[in-house]
Amino acid sequence: MQSERYFIGLDLGGTAIKFGICSKQGEIVQEFQQPTRADKPVKTILEDLAHAIQTAQEFAKQHQLPVAAVGMGTPGSVDVECGYLRGNTPNFKHWKDVKIKQYLEEKSQLPLWVDNDANMMAFGEATFGAGKGFSHVVCVTLGTGIGGGIIVDKELFRGSNYAGGEIGHMSIKFDGEPCRCGGIGCWELYASATAMIKNYHLKSGDTSIRSTKEIFEKYYNNETIAREVVEQEIEMAAVGVANILNIFNPQMVIIGGGVSESGDWFIEQIATEAKKRAMLPSSEGVKIVRAKLGNSAGWLGAAAFACHRLEE
Amino acid sequence: MQSERYFIGLDLGGTAIKFGICSKQGEIVQEFQQPTRADKPVKTILEDLAHAIQTAQEFAKQHQLPVAAVGMGTPGSVDVECGYLRGNTPNFKHWKDVKIKQYLEEKSQLPLWVDNDANMMAFGEATFGAGKGFSHVVCVTLGTGIGGGIIVDKELFRGSNYAGGEIGHMSIKFDGEPCRCGGIGCWELYASATAMIKNYHLKSGDTSIRSTKEIFEKYYNNETIAREVVEQEIEMAAVGVANILNIFNPQMVIIGGGVSESGDWFIEQIATEAKKRAMLPSSEGVKIVRAKLGNSAGWLGAAAFACHRLEE
Repeated sequence: MQSERYFIGLDLGGTAIKFGICSKQGEIVQEFQQPTRADKPVKTILEDLAHAIQTAQEFAKQHQLPVAAVGMGTPGSVDVECGYLRGNTPNFKHWKDVKIKQYLEEKSQLPLWVDNDANMMAFGEATFGAGKGFSHVVCVTLGTGIGGGIIVDKELFRGSNYAGGEIGHMSIKFDGEPCRCGGIGCWELYASATAMIKNYHLKSGDTSIRSTKEIFEKYYNNETIAREVVEQEIEMAAVGVANILNIFNPQMVIIGGGVSESGDWFIEQIATEAKKRAMLPSSEGVKIVRAKLGNSAGWLGAAAFACHRLEE
Repeated sequence: MQSERYFIGLDLGGTAIKFGICSKQGEIVQEFQQPTRADKPVKTILEDLAHAIQTAQEFAKQHQLPVAAVGMGTPGSVDVECGYLRGNTPNFKHWKDVKIKQYLEEKSQLPLWVDNDANMMAFGEATFGAGKGFSHVVCVTLGTGIGGGIIVDKELFRGSNYAGGEIGHMSIKFDGEPCRCGGIGCWELYASATAMIKNYHLKSGDTSIRSTKEIFEKYYNNETIAREVVEQEIEMAAVGVANILNIFNPQMVIIGGGVSESGDWFIEQIATEAKKRAMLPSSEGVKIVRAKLGNSAGWLGAAAFACHRLEE
C-alpha cells in the first residue's frame, strides 16, 4: 500500500544498541544490532546512534519504505518533551545530561522522540505485544532489578517530573534490607532475578549458580532447595503484583524479564497468589500474562511511541 | 455578578449527610448537615439525599444564586459514568447497588455526578484546598483506615474499573498481619489512627485511650510511651508516603484525617522521613502538606467535581 508509513525504533542498552524498522501495526520489517560503547564519551555514543538510524534509513530506502519518525529508549530519567537525558545512568561512563533529540533529529532529518528504556519496553508490550487492544496495562520486568511501565488510557504514566513508576522501589518490608536506592525493603530486593540467585546461594551454600535459568533447571529436577527458592520467588513477585492491582486496578499486568522466561506456569502461579492478596474489586477480571516481545520490546515500543506522538 | 454559577455538593457519611453551596472558585456560601439514617432502606436514604438537595436549592433560590449542577460522594465503589453504586458499603445496612444519579437527577432536575467519597475529598483538597493550583496530587487520609485519592493532570485516577487508588491496602510488610481486606501487611494496619491507638494499648496496657488526640496530649506531656507511639506513627506513615513518591512522583502529597490534626510539625516529620526513604528524582521538590478543608473537603470536592464535569 502506497500510504503505509514505517517507523524506526532504537533501544540503547548497556551492551548493545538494538534497533529496527516496523510498520504502524508493529510488524517487524528488519531488526539490527550493534555494540554499545558504554565507556566512550557522549559524542561517540551519539554518533553510534546516528549511524544506527542511518543503517535503518538506508535499508528502508532500498526497500522503498517511507519512514515517518524515529523513537528511542535510553536508560535514565528523560525529559520527554525536550528529548533530554537528565542526570546520569548506571553502566555508562559519560552518558549524562544529553540533548539526544536535538542531535539525532538534525542528523536524521526525521522527527524523533526519546523516553526511558523501561517505559519504551512497556509501551511496546502494551501496544504490539501481550497488551495489544488494552488501555490500562502495567508492565513488570523481573530482571537484575525490577523495572516497570504504567500505561493509563493508552498513555505512559510518568509522574509530574518523569520520575514516577518506580515500582521496583516500592517497599514491601518496612523493616527489611537497605536498598541501593536509599530505601528500605524495596520489592526488587525480594523478587528480582538477583534476589532469586542470592536466595539460592544463601540456602544452598552453592555460589556457582549464576542465572535463574540454572535454578529453574534444578527445580524441574526436583531439587528441594531450588523448589523452595522458586516458590519464594512466586510469593515475593505476587506481593508486588497485588499492590499494583490495588493501586492501579489495571486490565492487565504483563510480566517480563529473565525470570519470566521460565514459562507460563510460573506466571500463572504468580497470578493466583497475587489475586489472593489483592482486593476483590481491584483484581476482578484482571489478566496477568507473560511478555511476548522478548528483546525486541524496547525498540518496538520506541517505534510505537514515535508513531503515537506523530499522530497527536 | 450575573453570570456567576453555583454548585451544590453532598457528602454521604455513616453518621451525617454534609452538604452545601459554593461558587465555582470554592467559596462556601452555606453549609448544612443532617443525620444519615444508615440502617434504613435505600429508598429512605435516597429521599433524605433528595431532601438535602432541595434544602440547598431553596436556599439558593432565596438568595438568587443560580445552581448549575450537583456533585455527591458516597462510600463504596461507584461507576462514575452511570452514577451507580456497585456492591455494598460498610456501615450501611441496605445501601448497595443504587442508581443514585438517575434518582436524584429526576428529583432535583439538575445535572448530577456521583463518585466515591474518598475521591471527592481528594478532589476537594486538590481543587480548593491545599492542592489549589497543582495538577499532580495524592491525598492520604490517616483515619480509621487509610484512604486515598490520586489526581493526575487535574483528573481523578480511578483505575480501569473504578477500583484503583487503594493505597491503604498497599502491603508494606509482606510477612505482616492479615488485613480485613484479605491482604497481608497493609499500610493501614501500621499507620492509621486505629493502628496508633492499638499500638498505645499494646505498649501501655491502658486500653481506656480511645483517640489519637489523647495520645498526642500525652505526647506533649512527655509521656515516654506516647512519644514512642507518635514516633512509630511518623515512621509508618513515611513508609507509605515514600512508596507514593516513587510510584506517582506527584507535585504534592496532602495528608488529612484525624491523625493529621495534631499539627504541621507532625506532617513535617513525616515529610522528612518519607524523603529519606524515597528516591531522589521521585521526591525532589515535592511538597508534603496538611489538608486544609477539614470536614468540608468531601462536599466541596463533590461540588468541584460537578463543576469540572459540567465544563467538559
